[in-house]
Amino acid sequence: MFFSTKPYRGTRDFLPSEMSVRTQIFEKLFQTAEVFGFRRYDGPILESAAIYEAKSGKEIVDQQMYRFTDKGGRDVALRPEMTPSVARMIAGNQADIVFPSRWYSHPNCFRYERPQKGRVREHWQLNLDIFGSEDIGAEVEMFDLIGALFEALGADSSMYVIRVNDRMLLDAALTKFVGISGDSLSAVGAVIDRWEKVDEEERREELGKAGIGTHEIVRLESLLAMDLDEFAEAAGHEVASQSRIVKIIRDGLTSTPIQFDSHIIRGFDYYTSTVFEVFDRSPENRRSMFGGGRYDDLASLFTDRKIPGIGCGMGDVTTWNFLEIHGLLPEPDLGPDVFVFATSDEFAAAARRVTRMLRGAGIRSVPALDNPSPKAGLRFADRLGVRYAVIIGQSEYESGCVSVKDMLTSGQTTVDEGNVVRVVADSLAASS
Amino acid sequence: MFFSTKPYRGTRDFLPSEMSVRTQIFEKLFQTAEVFGFRRYDGPILESAAIYEAKSGKEIVDQQMYRFTDKGGRDVALRPEMTPSVARMIAGNQADIVFPSRWYSHPNCFRYERPQKGRVREHWQLNLDIFGSEDIGAEVEMFDLIGALFEALGADSSMYVIRVNDRMLLDAALTKFVGISGDSLSAVGAVIDRWEKVDEEERREELGKAGIGTHEIVRLESLLAMDLDEFAEAAGHEVASQSRIVKIIRDGLTSTPIQFDSHIIRGFDYYTSTVFEVFDRSPENRRSMFGGGRYDDLASLFTDRKIPGIGCGMGDVTTWNFLEIHGLLPEPDLGPDVFVFATSDEFAAAARRVTRMLRGAGIRSVPALDNPSPKAGLRFADRLGVRYAVIIGQSEYESGCVSVKDMLTSGQTTVDEGNVVRVVADSLAASS
Repeated sequence: MFFSTKPYRGTRDFLPSEMSVRTQIFEKLFQTAEVFGFRRYDGPILESAAIYEAKSGKEIVDQQMYRFTDKGGRDVALRPEMTPSVARMIAGNQADIVFPSRWYSHPNCFRYERPQKGRVREHWQLNLDIFGSEDIGAEVEMFDLIGALFEALGADSSMYVIRVNDRMLLDAALTKFVGISGDSLSAVGAVIDRWEKVDEEERREELGKAGIGTHEIVRLESLLAMDLDEFAEAAGHEVASQSRIVKIIRDGLTSTPIQFDSHIIRGFDYYTSTVFEVFDRSPENRRSMFGGGRYDDLASLFTDRKIPGIGCGMGDVTTWNFLEIHGLLPEPDLGPDVFVFATSDEFAAAARRVTRMLRGAGIRSVPALDNPSPKAGLRFADRLGVRYAVIIGQSEYESGCVSVKDMLTSGQTTVDEGNVVRVVADSLAASS
Repeated sequence: MFFSTKPYRGTRDFLPSEMSVRTQIFEKLFQTAEVFGFRRYDGPILESAAIYEAKSGKEIVDQQMYRFTDKGGRDVALRPEMTPSVARMIAGNQADIVFPSRWYSHPNCFRYERPQKGRVREHWQLNLDIFGSEDIGAEVEMFDLIGALFEALGADSSMYVIRVNDRMLLDAALTKFVGISGDSLSAVGAVIDRWEKVDEEERREELGKAGIGTHEIVRLESLLAMDLDEFAEAAGHEVASQSRIVKIIRDGLTSTPIQFDSHIIRGFDYYTSTVFEVFDRSPENRRSMFGGGRYDDLASLFTDRKIPGIGCGMGDVTTWNFLEIHGLLPEPDLGPDVFVFATSDEFAAAARRVTRMLRGAGIRSVPALDNPSPKAGLRFADRLGVRYAVIIGQSEYESGCVSVKDMLTSGQTTVDEGNVVRVVADSLAASS
């Protein structure tokens, strides 16, 4: 009896071909974030469970959190999201941090989910935040960056859209135009959050339960059908003139495709005004890929200093799915490029020497192990997927040469050992 | 009352300056591994606890493992090491894998440790394996690679040494020369493993407990003082002629500094012949940094196919420590390189436009938020550590120009907006 070779339920193994794709995707994202002046940080996967209990919402804590007691009696959790960790770090190091500060990280986060398409228990994120500014420029930066991230992945603006909303604008419109009282705002928000997921009847029932009368429900439906200008008027001039989202859309401050959508709420309590979700525009996949928003007071658990900011987290599963649908998934780039083998043990030292020369020039190369026959050597080179086989046989050995076989074209040339690096490097450069 | 801002006991936050160092170190290691034809993979942090129970040794499982029951009743653990995970993956995908196969990964691993210098509960590794070959060439590859990894970090061969041993050679010498019976080999191995950590008296006592008589103890002490040639003779010609380590040292098959050391054992049961530990040669830090070895049967928990190989894992803590002692730690490279600001809100659009041009050229740039005054803008640029401040004031704006201030030399020039990318890019290239 053997143990199962499957990974733990809801998690994934990344074999080299999958890992190469994942690495290429995230390397492009990291590079783009760096060009935008973001600095990378990292934190431990284990955190005190209490910080999620205080901030992450009931569903995450009660149902989705990996939580246990360590040998020292500490109540710990595998992070379900990165925000509480980075809030802790920012608060703990605030004296040394130059605000506003742009930070990014690449955490894996854990949630109990019933494994299904697009839902996993461990996923990898790109987490992005601008801390310490209430300026509208932070929103513009975030939207510009999202556009640049998509561009780095090969996507153009026809493929996705950022749907944006402003919770302050929404609350004002709900109060002023619909007549919702302050107490009911969050219950109504919860219904709006799931607006397209439930039918009209169910929605009206839920709103009724929250104490919203028929008259208000009709007003609410008409509010949510408004375009930005009507909506801004419904919210009132004073609030609308303060809204970053209204200004960004009206003045065209970002070239990333954004669109006002009063249904966007985001589930997290810490978001206070700007909220957004990025949607795939493909008809096959009209779903939210990821989102984010602005918070007034990031680190309230850890410090009395108010640290505002804006952040978002882009997950690997939805990103991969988006790239697949749009035909943008990078090809695995596995290496090695060159396989070196000798047809006799006698020339093995020469094969090792040639391998070292190739590696010294940065060319991904491996020497044969286990002394393959010429035939087995070429078969192995083929299965490994290298571009070139470098062969040292009797005649090559005697004349200080090697044969270079192009596995793609089957062309073969014999060159001086001293020239092999140049020949292979030139060919690789020409074909890349 | 606020929550603590400290990370969970025994784990570390990596603020941007520390993360930049860590990233630079590992990027160099990854690149070197790729040049050696290794392919990167990844696996989940959570694994079934049973696989460690079966293979990882009592100390890890009983004392050091993070283990808990998930909501579905599964007995899971945070991986204390990567080998069981990769064994599972290799076994589960053996039909698709071209052997011999070179794989690397960058896992974080978890162990309960009493936090102290060099001991942490979460650490990051470079994990390297060559699967599917019994060839001595796999050992040579591994030693060459370790040499190349150190070289990539800036270390030369005077700074470290690989101490190598062969468990088969050792067992033969213990049996043949010392007269230890098969039953006692592992107890004697455990004493040898801690040879330099305990004094002679304690050693003799432990050996006595293992049933080793005074005569044998004297023989053992003399065995362990032997050089390679004497030791090989003590083990007998047949075993010595099979030993990869003996051949590699005698024939000088690797240029990486290696040295025979009969005290090297390695704690893991799965190692069967070649074992090694890499030591810092600095007088301040004569300690083992990391190690590895050869296994006959990697995936025996998961498959009846025997998969031999050789592997090692290089941890971030000891590597960082080594680099620090030898003055080789890379400088943090934080970015951004350019800070762009306008002296009035009126020119903010120009500042954003210039920032986009710089970013478009791959130059790490940020625009000001919160409209700083000229003085505050320059102070911020200084605190942020950028090389250049790009300033758009009234006169610049009117003439379609920007001022570029070199924060290092304090030199300032005014250039056409259309030339700013070229000017900054040239200056950055010249100073890097």
